[in-house]
Amino acid sequence: MREVFAAGVANTPFGKFHDRTLRDLAEEAVAGVLADAGAEPDAIDSIFFANAAAGLVTGQEMIRGQVALRRTGLLGTQIVNVENACASGATAFGLGVSAIASGAADVVLAIGAERLSHEDKAVSFSAFGGAVDQEELPPSDGAPQRSMFMDIYARMAREAMARQGATAADLAAVAVKSHRNAAHNPVAQFRDEVTVDEVLASRTVSDPLTLLMCSPIGDGAAAVLLASARGLERMDADPVRVLSSVLRSGTGRAEPSPIATAAQAAYREAGVGPDAIDLVELHDAAAPAELTVPEELGLVEAGGGGVGLLRSGASSLGGRLPLNPSGGLISKGHPIGATGCSQIVELVTQLRGGAGARQVEGARVALAENGGGWLGAGLAAVSISILAR
Amino acid sequence: MREVFAAGVANTPFGKFHDRTLRDLAEEAVAGVLADAGAEPDAIDSIFFANAAAGLVTGQEMIRGQVALRRTGLLGTQIVNVENACASGATAFGLGVSAIASGAADVVLAIGAERLSHEDKAVSFSAFGGAVDQEELPPSDGAPQRSMFMDIYARMAREAMARQGATAADLAAVAVKSHRNAAHNPVAQFRDEVTVDEVLASRTVSDPLTLLMCSPIGDGAAAVLLASARGLERMDADPVRVLSSVLRSGTGRAEPSPIATAAQAAYREAGVGPDAIDLVELHDAAAPAELTVPEELGLVEAGGGGVGLLRSGASSLGGRLPLNPSGGLISKGHPIGATGCSQIVELVTQLRGGAGARQVEGARVALAENGGGWLGAGLAAVSISILAR
Repeated sequence: MREVFAAGVANTPFGKFHDRTLRDLAEEAVAGVLADAGAEPDAIDSIFFANAAAGLVTGQEMIRGQVALRRTGLLGTQIVNVENACASGATAFGLGVSAIASGAADVVLAIGAERLSHEDKAVSFSAFGGAVDQEELPPSDGAPQRSMFMDIYARMAREAMARQGATAADLAAVAVKSHRNAAHNPVAQFRDEVTVDEVLASRTVSDPLTLLMCSPIGDGAAAVLLASARGLERMDADPVRVLSSVLRSGTGRAEPSPIATAAQAAYREAGVGPDAIDLVELHDAAAPAELTVPEELGLVEAGGGGVGLLRSGASSLGGRLPLNPSGGLISKGHPIGATGCSQIVELVTQLRGGAGARQVEGARVALAENGGGWLGAGLAAVSISILAR
Repeated sequence: MREVFAAGVANTPFGKFHDRTLRDLAEEAVAGVLADAGAEPDAIDSIFFANAAAGLVTGQEMIRGQVALRRTGLLGTQIVNVENACASGATAFGLGVSAIASGAADVVLAIGAERLSHEDKAVSFSAFGGAVDQEELPPSDGAPQRSMFMDIYARMAREAMARQGATAADLAAVAVKSHRNAAHNPVAQFRDEVTVDEVLASRTVSDPLTLLMCSPIGDGAAAVLLASARGLERMDADPVRVLSSVLRSGTGRAEPSPIATAAQAAYREAGVGPDAIDLVELHDAAAPAELTVPEELGLVEAGGGGVGLLRSGASSLGGRLPLNPSGGLISKGHPIGATGCSQIVELVTQLRGGAGARQVEGARVALAENGGGWLGAGLAAVSISILAR
């Protein structure tokens, strides 16, 4: 297998942009990623386009990438439209990595774009219903402005708190850290710092989760230009190596955790272990993810939880293992299909040393975990990617 | 790049099955493909799942493969959900071919499944709206039971007829031939022979197209198990070689034709030219495709049309270059996301010499053309695959 490089990255601002279409957002990400890589449109051999909700939000299905990119000059090459719920972006990235590694292509664009916000919030929330087995959709309880996923995360939170001796204040501390990081991220949806008291006092979404512990509805796009060594000759890039990108589906059961399964495969392919990881972007659709995911990634001892990383400050900027230096899904935002690519953007930015006030000093190896959908008792899809300078 | 084999194939019956779910259809295809290849579920490294319409028909988006396959024992591996409108199935197949060729996997399942029929036919027809740019959706004229795609094919028919000197009777003859072939195909949706007069007398869908010249709404699933030479050791298969599978997006313009572009690349990769092709499954969503596509595939001289193949009998069973021996989309049926894989099923069946009364004698090299969606002035996606015994 050949070496794979992330040659360029771009991330539109994340937020609620009722005056911007999916196409507007995708075009901004394409222009940005080409500029960042010093590449022209005709350098690209193949495109993987990720989107999760357009079908349910606007009715645009089936050829989402062709429609979103039709004014960019990129059409005519291979375009594959991929979905894996909230892991759609990492799925596109992983297919791109595979295409480069195999020699099938020398330059591949992986792009995720989402226009999830809608004047009628019920439309936005209904889109999450597409990410579970329709036969398992709970009957609507008429509660406005909430996603069924927050009930899942709330249960995860209660279990993790009991197991780890964590409190609601710990969950709030995750959100506080996340907002603090996002304050230094120009593309973040939320750039205001918050206090533990403010997080705890915000509206309850699903007990014990309050609004500020949950990722918001939002819009945005993120793109990564992948290249082989030969592909790099077509551009003027500051590349970062991609050591591995592994996708696994859930099984419908809680065990084995697809996060753990994918992580083990990703470490093996990358030839590095958890000890090598300098920073992590993990899929914190809600705050409890920072309590549970570190153990599944092997970043803390088995039986240990993320609460230790949190309380010790290890997971903060300046700590031993910063988690979500970008602000994560909670504060940077979570435009579903864009999130997986956006995590890679942060990894590349950090590994290049270009993250400014949120820079993880000396970062050499970084990991992204992107989870998607829900099936029975676990995530429906998980992608783990490891990049290195 | 490594050699790639189609090791197993399966095709459920195509038809309108209001009592069967997408999951039922997918499960039948999985059981069939494993049996045909002599393989167990744990032989599979990776899955590409194609579906086009479930989002609009049932609301199931984002994790369609995980949901459809959750009872099959296949979950836990990589599952990628792909879309490319009517070319979704071939997109899944092509990604599988690439994964095997590259060494990323040794055994890959490509599966397409569609439950398109609906008690309310308007729901089925509305799904086609997802396959065009929403900004180009024509206002509904209130006509029941028709797809906007038939207006596109009708225009294509008028242009081809004028250019080739073809008549409505020629279009009817395509449908007659297609039905004649399908009468020998146990999975075909229509197995009754029809006459030119009956075709011409059937209801006008969009002038000059009558109902029997158009592919029907239908349900079904088709699957292909792909393997490397090493992967074949995990099963007891009668394999056929895959020489190439090329996907190209349209550009929104009529020229260059993505069919011609993809075909040229597919011939180049396969190392064979149009002269080597013994049979073709082409994307006849309506009858005029058999007039126009042969030239784009280089199967007739530039400036020549398919009408010559038709009138001479060359495109019939027993002729020099049988087109759509399966009955094609018109008569075998067109459950959107399944169609691309179903074309490969026919190619493999023919190349194995197992097609019974519709066998193309001595078939050694076969080509499939799967087109999808519409963008501006042309198809949004085209896949060309070439297989050989």
